[in-house]
Amino acid sequence: MTSAPPARRSSPPAGTGPVIAVDAMGGDHAPHEIVRGAVRAVRAHGLRLVLVGRTAELASLLAEEDAAGEIPVVHADDTLAMHEGALASWRRPRSSVAVACKLIRQGDAAALVSAGSTGGVVATSTVRLRTQPGVLRPALAVLFPTRPTPTVLVDAGANADAKPEMLVQFAHLGVAYAQTAYGIAQPRVGLLTIGSEPGKGNKLARRTAELLTAAADAPPGLDFRGNIEGHDLLGGLVDVVVTDGFTGNVALKSVEGAVRFALDEVRSALSSSPMARAGALLQRRPLRALRERVDSETYGGAVLLGLNGTVVIAHGASGARGIEQACLLAHELVAGRIVERVRRRVGATNRTPSWLRLAPNED
Amino acid sequence: MTSAPPARRSSPPAGTGPVIAVDAMGGDHAPHEIVRGAVRAVRAHGLRLVLVGRTAELASLLAEEDAAGEIPVVHADDTLAMHEGALASWRRPRSSVAVACKLIRQGDAAALVSAGSTGGVVATSTVRLRTQPGVLRPALAVLFPTRPTPTVLVDAGANADAKPEMLVQFAHLGVAYAQTAYGIAQPRVGLLTIGSEPGKGNKLARRTAELLTAAADAPPGLDFRGNIEGHDLLGGLVDVVVTDGFTGNVALKSVEGAVRFALDEVRSALSSSPMARAGALLQRRPLRALRERVDSETYGGAVLLGLNGTVVIAHGASGARGIEQACLLAHELVAGRIVERVRRRVGATNRTPSWLRLAPNED
Repeated sequence: MTSAPPARRSSPPAGTGPVIAVDAMGGDHAPHEIVRGAVRAVRAHGLRLVLVGRTAELASLLAEEDAAGEIPVVHADDTLAMHEGALASWRRPRSSVAVACKLIRQGDAAALVSAGSTGGVVATSTVRLRTQPGVLRPALAVLFPTRPTPTVLVDAGANADAKPEMLVQFAHLGVAYAQTAYGIAQPRVGLLTIGSEPGKGNKLARRTAELLTAAADAPPGLDFRGNIEGHDLLGGLVDVVVTDGFTGNVALKSVEGAVRFALDEVRSALSSSPMARAGALLQRRPLRALRERVDSETYGGAVLLGLNGTVVIAHGASGARGIEQACLLAHELVAGRIVERVRRRVGATNRTPSWLRLAPNED
Repeated sequence: MTSAPPARRSSPPAGTGPVIAVDAMGGDHAPHEIVRGAVRAVRAHGLRLVLVGRTAELASLLAEEDAAGEIPVVHADDTLAMHEGALASWRRPRSSVAVACKLIRQGDAAALVSAGSTGGVVATSTVRLRTQPGVLRPALAVLFPTRPTPTVLVDAGANADAKPEMLVQFAHLGVAYAQTAYGIAQPRVGLLTIGSEPGKGNKLARRTAELLTAAADAPPGLDFRGNIEGHDLLGGLVDVVVTDGFTGNVALKSVEGAVRFALDEVRSALSSSPMARAGALLQRRPLRALRERVDSETYGGAVLLGLNGTVVIAHGASGARGIEQACLLAHELVAGRIVERVRRRVGATNRTPSWLRLAPNED
């Protein structure tokens, strides 16, 4: 595995830096948009990539982009279909995702980027990369477009049924992510529940709040700020929001759907009368900038944390720009040594005596 | 209990129709805005109301509105504070909410409207009105502003830890609500989960999907359309969305927060340059209409279903308009005999043999 200096938001010179394996066959617009995105990532940012998929097809797409030979291609016969879920990993050992994982295991790549189905990529990479020592379950982290830095939500759907101890680990995974990607020294952690007062929520949330309170004082430390509610997800109150994968996935999709609904309603309100339409002409630019800021493609995608390798899952509908952003995110996480950071944080919690780590909050 | 013809969206002549007990002391703007809203409801719609709270204070507020003697007042010494939760009902038997429930039990009112704390109103009215025969748990129903008719989400927070059998009942409660308030003969029901294919979700959602599938063919019937996701909440795919109170509350607040976030972002985008500001002047009217349409005050509030009496919980921040809408909603639900409708639906499910009602879907 090649390593790079841990500078954030910097592009390494071509030919150095970690290698990112890009699943060229996953996504609604694969392989064409994936190849275009990869070419942009290489040319604009000097990233080192490998495309994984059907060699002949990829070679001809690279040639179409005037990029023949610019990005190495590793052959994979098989492809996970977009509708394939968790069982896919056992059925498809020669899929492009499985081959990309093999490159990581062999040390020939440090990260995987895929726009394939989330269920399939999570299952395949969990089986093939394995969880890091001490990690109970890998968790999916996504970003909300808060300011000045995005808010990390973890778990966004990898674990539909989770235990309180897992949620405490998700907090550590999310903290490692916020530190690595945004340089936040001590990310603030909130627990997603219903009601801001302590003791609110379902059994899972109530027990998790106790464990997170205890974890705040145990190594490696956690800046736990208590409960947050659905209202607060876009409020920037905390840097990391912890929840189980079921609630997190519902919350994420509810937010995405509601923002889209509101912007669509604005669009139709703004074209509801000749006067409003005249006004809208004057506003094209700021409204476009807004759509871009809240657009999921801007953020590079979800990250599966806790595995022996960095896995970025771009949105299934990603175009070239989404893939380019996902490659940049993967590069930053590898350059910031996220796997090592998770290993240290989780290792520290596991060295804590269990009577201290699991003691409920008696305040 | 006075009864009214079951006409929807119609106002009865003054002096007839069911009586609605309005908690004058609950809410951020109580009692002033509550009294103003009640006066509007009486004058504009001819509703029959009783104000419950501190008599002297309410009489002087009514006089301020030139409405002295227009609305009867029933005295209650005590008030639930906005931060008081579920335990409040045991501690405060003389609160305005408890006294209003007493009016319902005595047959002097058919419904309660309160803008007090949701936890306090749910707990007090559950203890004092009791659940209807056969109902496992009362559930909170809220509306999303879909077109042509709103979508009912149930449970929005009354039951943080629920069982699959409860969720099936929530479906029946939601169906009764959609039938009563919107005249939808056969409301379409969806289960909120993660992933649209059958078998997706956590254990609770997977088992509930089996039971809902079985319930579709058992009396009283249910038009179960399968899984829906967070994205779909504002898409109008179904009329009733079923979920547990924890997930439902997170989803509701996530949607509310995201819509507010998006509209705030639009507002700041539209004032980001002189040109955009000039455009915004031309659009004040449609944007105001949009804010109004997605505003929670327009919908009258949450409804607690499954009790021996109709309970409408207006938003804590309700002004006079929110209270007026909540009174109208309570009137419609009583006029449409929602309690009777729930009794018939739940009674029908309880007559179904258990081997049929609980049989998992074997397709």
